[in-house]
Amino acid sequence: MPSLQKATHGQTRTYNSRLVLRTIYDHAPISRADVARTTGLTRTSVSDLVAELLELGIALEIGRGPSSGGKAPILLTVADDSRHLIGVDLGESQFSAAIVNLRGEIRRSVSLPRDGSDGDQAVQLVYRLIDQLVGDHDGPLVGIGIGTPGIIDTATGTVRWAVNLNWRDLNLGQLVRDRFDVPVYVANDSQAAALAEYIFGTDRQATNMVVIKVGLGIGAGLILNGELFLGDGFGAGEIGHTTVVPGGELCRCGRRGCLETVASARAILERATAGALADPASMLGRAMSQSGRLTIEDIAEAAEAGDDPARAVVNEAGRSLGRSIASLIGALDVHRIALIGAASGLGEPWLDAIRGEARDGALSLIARPTAIELGQVDPARAVLLGASAVLLTRELGLMPAR
Amino acid sequence: MPSLQKATHGQTRTYNSRLVLRTIYDHAPISRADVARTTGLTRTSVSDLVAELLELGIALEIGRGPSSGGKAPILLTVADDSRHLIGVDLGESQFSAAIVNLRGEIRRSVSLPRDGSDGDQAVQLVYRLIDQLVGDHDGPLVGIGIGTPGIIDTATGTVRWAVNLNWRDLNLGQLVRDRFDVPVYVANDSQAAALAEYIFGTDRQATNMVVIKVGLGIGAGLILNGELFLGDGFGAGEIGHTTVVPGGELCRCGRRGCLETVASARAILERATAGALADPASMLGRAMSQSGRLTIEDIAEAAEAGDDPARAVVNEAGRSLGRSIASLIGALDVHRIALIGAASGLGEPWLDAIRGEARDGALSLIARPTAIELGQVDPARAVLLGASAVLLTRELGLMPAR
Repeated sequence: MPSLQKATHGQTRTYNSRLVLRTIYDHAPISRADVARTTGLTRTSVSDLVAELLELGIALEIGRGPSSGGKAPILLTVADDSRHLIGVDLGESQFSAAIVNLRGEIRRSVSLPRDGSDGDQAVQLVYRLIDQLVGDHDGPLVGIGIGTPGIIDTATGTVRWAVNLNWRDLNLGQLVRDRFDVPVYVANDSQAAALAEYIFGTDRQATNMVVIKVGLGIGAGLILNGELFLGDGFGAGEIGHTTVVPGGELCRCGRRGCLETVASARAILERATAGALADPASMLGRAMSQSGRLTIEDIAEAAEAGDDPARAVVNEAGRSLGRSIASLIGALDVHRIALIGAASGLGEPWLDAIRGEARDGALSLIARPTAIELGQVDPARAVLLGASAVLLTRELGLMPAR
Repeated sequence: MPSLQKATHGQTRTYNSRLVLRTIYDHAPISRADVARTTGLTRTSVSDLVAELLELGIALEIGRGPSSGGKAPILLTVADDSRHLIGVDLGESQFSAAIVNLRGEIRRSVSLPRDGSDGDQAVQLVYRLIDQLVGDHDGPLVGIGIGTPGIIDTATGTVRWAVNLNWRDLNLGQLVRDRFDVPVYVANDSQAAALAEYIFGTDRQATNMVVIKVGLGIGAGLILNGELFLGDGFGAGEIGHTTVVPGGELCRCGRRGCLETVASARAILERATAGALADPASMLGRAMSQSGRLTIEDIAEAAEAGDDPARAVVNEAGRSLGRSIASLIGALDVHRIALIGAASGLGEPWLDAIRGEARDGALSLIARPTAIELGQVDPARAVLLGASAVLLTRELGLMPAR
């Protein structure tokens, strides 16, 4: 619903300045005249606003374009590295962070092993990580975007609950803001990764997209009408803790039979290990006895080669996830679903099981046009790119594209 | 994302005229000076635009308000019956329609029994229904809003698929538009009813709301960020055809084990009948032998009185629906769920079963704050009010409130 208030002069200037910056960013190299044409602003306003952006160093003149009769126009671009952001990914086994420029390009990255730290220890680890990047960085920093597991109140930056980090009502945003004195944005990791997939992984033709992260846990990010949908309590996409096996296995959330207990990478590894021990002569059994433990790659390889225990595990996990995806498709009628996270290493046999069940489990008119694919963004970077992209949009009004 | 184009003068005038009309509509009685203050437009612009609305007869002067020193200001209001809309509800057993005014008040209504008609016969029935209202109506008609079961392309008014009406790719919107020569809006009935529940049934504090219609079929309407969410293929909310019992009973959609086969009013009636026949001494059995068939009221009464077969049926249906609601809650984290349709006559025992399962089936931090309640809008009017409300917003920029 449009606001009933007319914009004030100051708001208009800020809005127009962002509009000019975004037009240069999206169409560079571009002349002042073309900026005026594209935005509908007067030549004088554009000249004023561009002068300001040049002075701030965020826009640049980069020579002259072809003349269309008169004097060849000066072309403008955005100085991609005139401002940087820090993106942070609080992963299950390591915390990583990177310096990102205005185009979402990674300039430097660091990571620290988590070693099971949680509570205040984990907060200290976040500080150490960011310290390493801030220490020898100079130039203006737009802010810090953090992707973390858990239910996050993005309005205040509070982690309401993150099971594995043992954080409850922790105002991580405020802590990091106080320490580094820049704007901080905290997001759920699956939601941040979904945004990265939406921005960097597709041609952005889709207006709706569901990105499901199947790692040690399972969580989804919903892009609805081109925006991340958070729900009333910021928990939208927490599909990993929906009951799929009533009275089933104990989940780390304290309940039983959650989707995570049957379809996460953790569940797959546990079940494959049990399968390997039960059938030592199988390909899975031999891989197990060789290295003492199984990886997702071992399981993928064995399933691909037709090994029975591997096939059974991959098939069962894929089908459970497929049934949950069918309910999502039935509820949202979204035509693009991307799968990311460790389990996506299981490849085609896993995808086949998911697709079969997802398409059988919802009305064909709705399910048929839905594409279920692996994500396209480098998983090591998705969360931190997504978290910093939100900050870029919020602070400067820019949205990077692939 | 804001448009990159500056508004043209004509667009601005139309926008401002709607803004003024809506301000009068929302705040009536109101003076021109207060319209100017609320909208931020100049007094001169407001006077011009109000003059136009008075001439069109859509706004009215209704006397003078209290003076704040000078001359007492003239107060304005909207002439609620200066324009009418027609709302249509293509129900399972009857088609009904009503003349609705600018406040969503019903002025006259008619209905015709459906008698199982489908295909072209059903289209003819729609015409006859609207003919009856249009015949002796005079005054300007804003348009016709139609709520129908099925998957509806609301952009073109095409019924892509309505199982029970045997309509496939029927451009109902165009047909009705050609015949009555007014704007026509066609919506899915559950989606229209959801909108009515959102607009007329609550205080509109909620930004998100899921309204589930459990009648002979099951469908939901999703209000996300204050708007009806339709999905990529207009099928959002089609939860009735999500598989909940793999390999279960045959559904009328041609697949097996859909939610409708276990939780719809149809399934409840069938199961209760079977229960009554199996236990003729039960309260349900006696009701059955008395009247030859059971109604939802019979089942509600028996369940309320603690009758075993009735309890079992109500409990099972409620729990199945509750599990589906749990997945919705997990996926969307929406804090308001309203239940409408015939099955809502089952009352508390049914609600208890739904609530229990819905809360157990999703992460407590997400499920706990979710209110699951019966809808508040008269079910006989919800669909046609919802369909006409969309038209009211689209054609005149107005949104009625309770």
